[in-house]
Amino acid sequence: MMGTYNNILLAVDLHPSYDEYTIKKAVDFAKERNAKLTLLHCIEGIHAYGAVQGYQLIMEVEQQIEQEAKKALADLGKTYGIAPENQMLVQGPPQKVVIEKAKAMKADLIIVGGHGRHGISLLFGSTADGIMHHAQCDVLAIRAKS
Amino acid sequence: MMGTYNNILLAVDLHPSYDEYTIKKAVDFAKERNAKLTLLHCIEGIHAYGAVQGYQLIMEVEQQIEQEAKKALADLGKTYGIAPENQMLVQGPPQKVVIEKAKAMKADLIIVGGHGRHGISLLFGSTADGIMHHAQCDVLAIRAKS
Repeated sequence: MMGTYNNILLAVDLHPSYDEYTIKKAVDFAKERNAKLTLLHCIEGIHAYGAVQGYQLIMEVEQQIEQEAKKALADLGKTYGIAPENQMLVQGPPQKVVIEKAKAMKADLIIVGGHGRHGISLLFGSTADGIMHHAQCDVLAIRAKS
Repeated sequence: MMGTYNNILLAVDLHPSYDEYTIKKAVDFAKERNAKLTLLHCIEGIHAYGAVQGYQLIMEVEQQIEQEAKKALADLGKTYGIAPENQMLVQGPPQKVVIEKAKAMKADLIIVGGHGRHGISLLFGSTADGIMHHAQCDVLAIRAKS
């Protein structure tokens, strides 16, 4: 079925308390309509201006974060049947990265989710607002089950 | 098909420059999945604190606005095959009204749209943000074709 949304970008959080409800719902939504679903996770660099002495250590921490994110993303992909070529791990500010990647892949929908356990989420705060206002396509915000 | 969204509340703008693209897309989206779609339009009262002399005139203007909104909503419903019992015209602040009505009707998705011609819209500014943050269900923001 060629429906309203066929090429979906799901921005995931990979937070330790990440609520799988959100990704499961996004995957169900994509499957229902036979849409292509791409997983995107952003890693923000560590901001440590002037930390000359700690530079080596910060590099190591960043590499470790990236390794762990890569593994978490691959695990998610495996669990939900999303092929590795449809998984993206990008370093940069989430709002900018999500909007740019959506544009580059000609996504017709961006899905952002939030883990509701603590009522806070990177992707349900100002980042979600920014995505909603600046994206060139539609945006679906999935609220985590509370 | 019982899919991810079956009971959808579409908050419409009824602005003179309203872009029909948004409502058409929302209707297509609902039809694809055989979901119930309810149209909601909010009218904000005119704020004129202290305007004792103009009270009668303000009442008349408010009534006229309500009449016109009723007609515009009925026209939209007719064009897109939405039954009168699935059309709501409510007076009050849009964010509060949309969230309350969604809760009352147990909506599983709120759709907000924006008319993109001038890059501004009641439902794509702080109201959309407020709905996204405070709604108890998922929110889909449809961007008007620019």
